[in-house]
This record gives sequence, structure tokens and C-alpha cells, in this order.
Amino acid sequence: MLKSKIILAMDKPLSYQTLKEMENEIYGIKVGLPLVLDLGVHKTRELLNDLNVEEIIVDFKLADIGYIMKSIVEKLSFANSFIAHSFVGVKGALDELKKYLDTNSKNLYLVAVMSHEGWSTLFTDYIKNVIREISPKGIVVGGTKLDSITQYRKEFTKITIISPGMGSQGGIYGDAICAGADYEIIGRSIYNADDPFTTIKTINKIIEEKVMNCKGAIFREK
Amino acid sequence: MLKSKIILAMDKPLSYQTLKEMENEIYGIKVGLPLVLDLGVHKTRELLNDLNVEEIIVDFKLADIGYIMKSIVEKLSFANSFIAHSFVGVKGALDELKKYLDTNSKNLYLVAVMSHEGWSTLFTDYIKNVIREISPKGIVVGGTKLDSITQYRKEFTKITIISPGMGSQGGIYGDAICAGADYEIIGRSIYNADDPFTTIKTINKIIEEKVMNCKGAIFREK
Repeated sequence: MLKSKIILAMDKPLSYQTLKEMENEIYGIKVGLPLVLDLGVHKTRELLNDLNVEEIIVDFKLADIGYIMKSIVEKLSFANSFIAHSFVGVKGALDELKKYLDTNSKNLYLVAVMSHEGWSTLFTDYIKNVIREISPKGIVVGGTKLDSITQYRKEFTKITIISPGMGSQGGIYGDAICAGADYEIIGRSIYNADDPFTTIKTINKIIEEKVMNCKGAIFREK
Repeated sequence: MLKSKIILAMDKPLSYQTLKEMENEIYGIKVGLPLVLDLGVHKTRELLNDLNVEEIIVDFKLADIGYIMKSIVEKLSFANSFIAHSFVGVKGALDELKKYLDTNSKNLYLVAVMSHEGWSTLFTDYIKNVIREISPKGIVVGGTKLDSITQYRKEFTKITIISPGMGSQGGIYGDAICAGADYEIIGRSIYNADDPFTTIKTINKIIEEKVMNCKGAIFREK
């Protein structure tokens, strides 16, 4: 089996046992604010702490001034990485966050393109400039917008691309990776399933088969 | 005394006793995510529940798809109002949030202009269109950008304008109101003060004197 290309989006609690069962079937976990509001920071940390996954990404879609974004991420040291919005801009916002995360050996992902219909493409040039200036580990591009994934992959050849919106939101498993993404973020289809473990195994197989046959795909330069 | 024009930004816990002392000196409280991560939802609710203030505004700068924003606000029913970002757009995001908040008799504020230097003005027309389409109770315009406050006040004559960035971030008390804002949001200057109660009384006086003498000010149509 290929290494899993799935990042599990956890916006609702799953039991420790279920997570432990799934740890070999996923690349990482994306932790949403609804989950942290439900469990609190302490219990979230406990739940995730000794899971054997590559990356824990806190996704609060940070979009505030630097001072507040730093006050948030400093409380969440169990995470490897954090997602923030590009559009808040650099000075007094993302510059301060990036500096703090670098100092603490944490990664930053910036939102480039969201998955919902109302997301405007008017800001594309601006967002690309912010990404170039901040130079994050990765970016978030909605898996419902395959052309955007390919466009960003071509321009940002070495950046990690992660794609939400797969499954419940309409993205088809494997399509985002064939378009140039590194990982597909899947949430509701797994955590709302009767049997999350079997579901995730099935999705892994679908992605694997799709990826072996995708045509003209461009992958990240290693 | 005029009714207070101060919204206390709470990003750090203040004791119940201190808050009780201050409740007559403030219009409302803006609750930040750092506070809720520190205290948890339950203790935050307990701390704020029987304070006698006009409005409790949860400021997580929501900037996600509708499903996630709804999952967040539904857990925070102690609040009267919520702040979200305009730039995420309407369809699949703010339309769903607004509908949910309307149904539950909660208010929405949209961020129009942030207070930090790196905030881009490239999106102004887009943001104004989103505000017109969503028709929120109010908007957030940084108190460090007085021209923007006046510009929004002239175009949105009946909307409530609240202005952060006063004090620690460089905004001068009273200036935002003279420029057309309804309330000034003050955080660090109060919650980091040795004596928050005396500090807030002093700031109230400064604002009151400034507002009685501001020239050419435009106020909201009631």
C-alpha cells in the first residue's frame, strides 16, 4: 500500500480507540475549532498525544492580528502545524505569526482557495504574493476546485498542498491528488460514518487506484 | 455621564469581581478565542452569565465554510453576537451563518477593515458588496484607520460600527467615535493595567470629553 494521502478532519470527537485503529490509515489529523470547544484544550491534547500520525494540524483558520494569533497558537503546543488565512496580510499579522512558529519549530499552512462556492477569485494575485512573502510549509486549496490546485502546483512547485472539501462537500476522492495536491482532507464522510475504520480503508483504496491511473498529473518536487 | 462607548476586549481572564465592578463602565464585552481556550466554554459562560452589560460579542474572526461556522456558534449560546470575516464570501459561508444566527436571534458583525498595517485595501469594493448582501447588525473597522471609519459611516448610515485597535495598537481614545464609530473596543490597555477599574473610568472620561468636542462628526442614524 502507498502511504496514506488522507488527513482526517476532526471537528467532532472520535474515541481514542477508533483513532488508534485508524492511525495507520491516515497521514495526519486536522483539528477543528468545534472539536476544541467541545473537549477543551487539555482533553484534545490527551486524545491526540500518543497517536502515531505524521502531522497534527490545528485548523482554526486564523485571521487576526499577530498578537492574537500568537496568543492562540502558544496554547496549542500539541500541534505540529497551524492554518491561517493569507488575506489578512503580512505586516502586523502573518509576519509575527510566522516568526513565532519558526522559533518554536512549528509549521504554517496558508489558505489559498477555499472549497465553498462563494469564495472569490478576485484576490488570487494578492494571495499568491502573500504566500511568496511568508513562504509557509504548505497551502490549503479546496478539493472542489481542481483547476486552482493545478495552477498553484505549477507556480509553487515545492510547497505542500492540502485539499479539504472531499466527500460531503462534493470533492471526489483522489481527484485533488491527481490535480497536484499532496493530501486530501476528509472529515464528515469519516467521522459521521457508522464504521469510520472501514470507511477510511475503502477511501484509501479508492485514492490509491485513482492516483495510479491519473493522467498528466503534476506532483510536488521533493 | 454619557452611556459608555467602550467594549471591553477580553483575551485574558479577569476576575468576576473586577468585571462586576466594571459592568457600569462598559457597553459590552468582546470575548476572544485566547480567553475561551484558557477557560473553556463552560467557565467562560459562567464568568459572563450574570454580568449586566448590553452585549456580549464572541470574536473568533470566523472565516470558514458555513457548516463549520455554525458548528462553532451553536456551542456559544451565551453570546448575543458573533464576528465573522466578510472576505469569505456569501454562498456556502456567510449566507448559512446569517440564516442560523437570525433563526436563533443572534447578531452578526462583519469585519470590514482590520487595524494592523498589513491589511490590504484592495478588497474594499468586494467587502462592501458582501456587507450589503448579508446586511449584518454591524461591522468592524480598525480604530487606527479613521478615514475608513468615516467612509463606511457615510455609506452604511444605519449600521453599527465597532472599532478595535484603541490604546495598545495606536488608536487614540475617542478618535474612532468622532470619525463615525459607535463603540471603541479596548483590550490590553485595560486587562493588562494594574488597576483595570480606574483605568476604564479614566478612558471613559477621555472619550466623553473628546466626543463632546469632535468637529464635523457623523453619527449613526437611529
